[in-house]
Amino acid sequence: MNGRMVGRILGLVLLTLAGLLLLPLLVGLIYRERVVGFLAAALLCAAIGGILLLFKPKSREIFAKEGFTAVGLTWTVMSLLGALPFVINGSIPNYIDAVFETASGLTTTGASILNNCELLPHADQFWRIFTHWLGGMGVLVFVMAVLPMSESRAMHIMRAEMPGPTVGKLVPRARKTALILYLTYAGLTLIETVLLMFGGMSFFEALLHAFATAGTGGFSTRAASIGGFQSLYIEMVIAVFLVLFGINFNLYYFVLIGRFKEALKSEELHVYFALIGVSVLAIALGITKMYGGFATALRHAFFNTMSIVSTAGFGTVDFTTWPDYCQSILVILMFIGGCAGSTGGGLKLSRVMLLVKTAVADVQRMVSPRRVTRIELDGRRVSQETASAVYTYFALYMLLLIACMFIVSFDGYDFATNFTAALSCMSNVGPGLGRISPAGNFAIFSPLSKITMTLTMLFGRLEIYAMLILFIPSTWRKRS
Amino acid sequence: MNGRMVGRILGLVLLTLAGLLLLPLLVGLIYRERVVGFLAAALLCAAIGGILLLFKPKSREIFAKEGFTAVGLTWTVMSLLGALPFVINGSIPNYIDAVFETASGLTTTGASILNNCELLPHADQFWRIFTHWLGGMGVLVFVMAVLPMSESRAMHIMRAEMPGPTVGKLVPRARKTALILYLTYAGLTLIETVLLMFGGMSFFEALLHAFATAGTGGFSTRAASIGGFQSLYIEMVIAVFLVLFGINFNLYYFVLIGRFKEALKSEELHVYFALIGVSVLAIALGITKMYGGFATALRHAFFNTMSIVSTAGFGTVDFTTWPDYCQSILVILMFIGGCAGSTGGGLKLSRVMLLVKTAVADVQRMVSPRRVTRIELDGRRVSQETASAVYTYFALYMLLLIACMFIVSFDGYDFATNFTAALSCMSNVGPGLGRISPAGNFAIFSPLSKITMTLTMLFGRLEIYAMLILFIPSTWRKRS
Repeated sequence: MNGRMVGRILGLVLLTLAGLLLLPLLVGLIYRERVVGFLAAALLCAAIGGILLLFKPKSREIFAKEGFTAVGLTWTVMSLLGALPFVINGSIPNYIDAVFETASGLTTTGASILNNCELLPHADQFWRIFTHWLGGMGVLVFVMAVLPMSESRAMHIMRAEMPGPTVGKLVPRARKTALILYLTYAGLTLIETVLLMFGGMSFFEALLHAFATAGTGGFSTRAASIGGFQSLYIEMVIAVFLVLFGINFNLYYFVLIGRFKEALKSEELHVYFALIGVSVLAIALGITKMYGGFATALRHAFFNTMSIVSTAGFGTVDFTTWPDYCQSILVILMFIGGCAGSTGGGLKLSRVMLLVKTAVADVQRMVSPRRVTRIELDGRRVSQETASAVYTYFALYMLLLIACMFIVSFDGYDFATNFTAALSCMSNVGPGLGRISPAGNFAIFSPLSKITMTLTMLFGRLEIYAMLILFIPSTWRKRS
Repeated sequence: MNGRMVGRILGLVLLTLAGLLLLPLLVGLIYRERVVGFLAAALLCAAIGGILLLFKPKSREIFAKEGFTAVGLTWTVMSLLGALPFVINGSIPNYIDAVFETASGLTTTGASILNNCELLPHADQFWRIFTHWLGGMGVLVFVMAVLPMSESRAMHIMRAEMPGPTVGKLVPRARKTALILYLTYAGLTLIETVLLMFGGMSFFEALLHAFATAGTGGFSTRAASIGGFQSLYIEMVIAVFLVLFGINFNLYYFVLIGRFKEALKSEELHVYFALIGVSVLAIALGITKMYGGFATALRHAFFNTMSIVSTAGFGTVDFTTWPDYCQSILVILMFIGGCAGSTGGGLKLSRVMLLVKTAVADVQRMVSPRRVTRIELDGRRVSQETASAVYTYFALYMLLLIACMFIVSFDGYDFATNFTAALSCMSNVGPGLGRISPAGNFAIFSPLSKITMTLTMLFGRLEIYAMLILFIPSTWRKRS
């Protein structure tokens, strides 16, 4: 293990974080609010980052192991340090709560321990929701995009932080790929901000909701979430952008360079649209009576389906009052999540597709042992390693989910609350059923549960391995 | 596909079933009850079986495909025909209900649609609970044990019907293996019957409860299940036998031939005992206050833990009134189930162990790519194929569970009810949380849900593939 290189990467990220903390500080100065928390946290990040950079690594070579460790460590440290402003400013005095809220932001979960988020100062609100934007595309990918880094190092980090069963480069250089992704991301965010301002939102609220949509996070400036705006226009803008941010970003690159056909023939995209269409229709039919008409039902079905399948978790209504089968659809969508390479969480649609395809192939092989079965995605053959990695991932996902549910159940809430809380954290959604319905929040849980769920959110966002590696003793042993 | 051989196997089983139906008929004659249902069903089974045997197969050769198809088909037909006596006798007039109850019996689930099972005549009660005994060790294994069958044919059937990730033969001949397994099974059942009679049960009740324990089924002659007897002795006898029937039967063979050491060094056995010990203790601590003392708490914790981990599903108290974390433990145990090669359901302990071991090995390989990682069980190397088959199995298990939950959720009950109903059917347990607590039953569900759950129970008992093969079109195509 090249520990010094891991330290160096962590140092670079902390320096970047120190710089980013100046943004809420600026917001605080504009609104004449308490900014000491941001100043202190920025200085601390800069100091730790600076010290880490003093240790020169003997070798600059890193492998997958260092990539995963650096990513897992960085996200953990960012959650721990990013929480400080809330504690120092006094907006979230309890440190465990503050870490939960920060990790929930960074992982784009959007689960909140705040009973009324409208009480936050502008600066704290900005930082809380800006973490969604930062975490959505990946913090290290951001660092990669702005700082010089060797090709192999960049690739190892990108693999560890980017979501999906396989990570491809758009262009030969990983760094340029990261830059293109971030520019697309920023561009879409900007367009959404402007569109939301047309709907009557202030620049501040429009920007923050665009951040939360882009990262498919789900934090809102309003306690009633998007429902608080009572605007069909705003709901539709956000829902449509949730559709967009749930799509693999590589497809936007194909669109940008004019290869429309290639973008449109993506199998995952077709299933994504089919899944959304069927779910919205099935839910709308089920809630038509509740809302006195199909049009209103369709509006709520579309917004909330997109909110869940993109794993954002915004709310307009309390879907736990819907017919039970509608809730079942939402729970299944929580498992699935967005497309690979999007900012959405969950298992990722292409993984679920591979799971089903591999299972079908396995059964076919059983029926006709001599038949050649190949698994294909987008017309290309999927290797046996990728297929079996997807199975391992799914099993780990379920095991972690069940472990989280088990620890949370010590708080004494009902099964629906515990199960969907664990699922919601693992899939980075936000709300769930029972006590954590869109009308509830995560303040009810014990410190132990909050710590468990904080870790679960990080496991979910970093797709398990980058976090799991931190818990393996041999990671921390000296190089032999 | 050698359809005629599949038909021939089905015919043999139906003739056996016709013979077995004479047992409840005899019981009915003794108690002077209505037996027309058994007579009619026996004649029908004999007639269909006889006709099927008229078609002589051109070739007697069968492969895995025929083995799986024969097993899946046989169990489905047995559920459909075995339900007839209940309908004809009028004890369960609704045919869908009767099929649910029969499949629940054969698959050793023990989920009941009866509001008060004490109203059943003796003969119907006998048949209802005898199906547990029949299904526990496997119906085709029974046919194999009593009828001559070629070696390769016997092995293909045994593989398809016996539970667990790998099926081993105890002795070189599969038929003799089946005979040894059945004799052990019958012997243990007999001992339990005698022990239960010492506790004051009538021979009839003792025998039926021994049947239900042996198959780890969970049907009882009492509406209050084992709790109805109010006897510590009876509870402990049944709990201890549940421990025994949850163990891999191969170990008894080792004990019988004097190779104690080999039996005791089974890794699965050690984990099984550790799992039981930890669960019982954790639950007992949680319910001590409820029952006014640790001794009573331990009694209820031991009985109900064994009832769930063996996937029998007997009840003495309503565990849905227990602290939530205790219920979480029980839900996790429902997933795991008994040991491979036992009569218990669930994923099987050795599969869960392989899941965890493979995951650990995968992560270790990620950390140190050059390190050689081998997965071992009982000191023997587990092949990559077995390991990846376990992952596929787990994924299919979860997909079927979620599909079942989804369909059941249309009935409009809460999430805990739907999820645990699906889990309980898939793992062949019986009770669950919410409306299907030990105090509730499955009568509340719609016909669609009951059909879905009937299929789910069969999928669970036959470990998916033997049922799945029936739904694949190419299974039914003519041999090309």
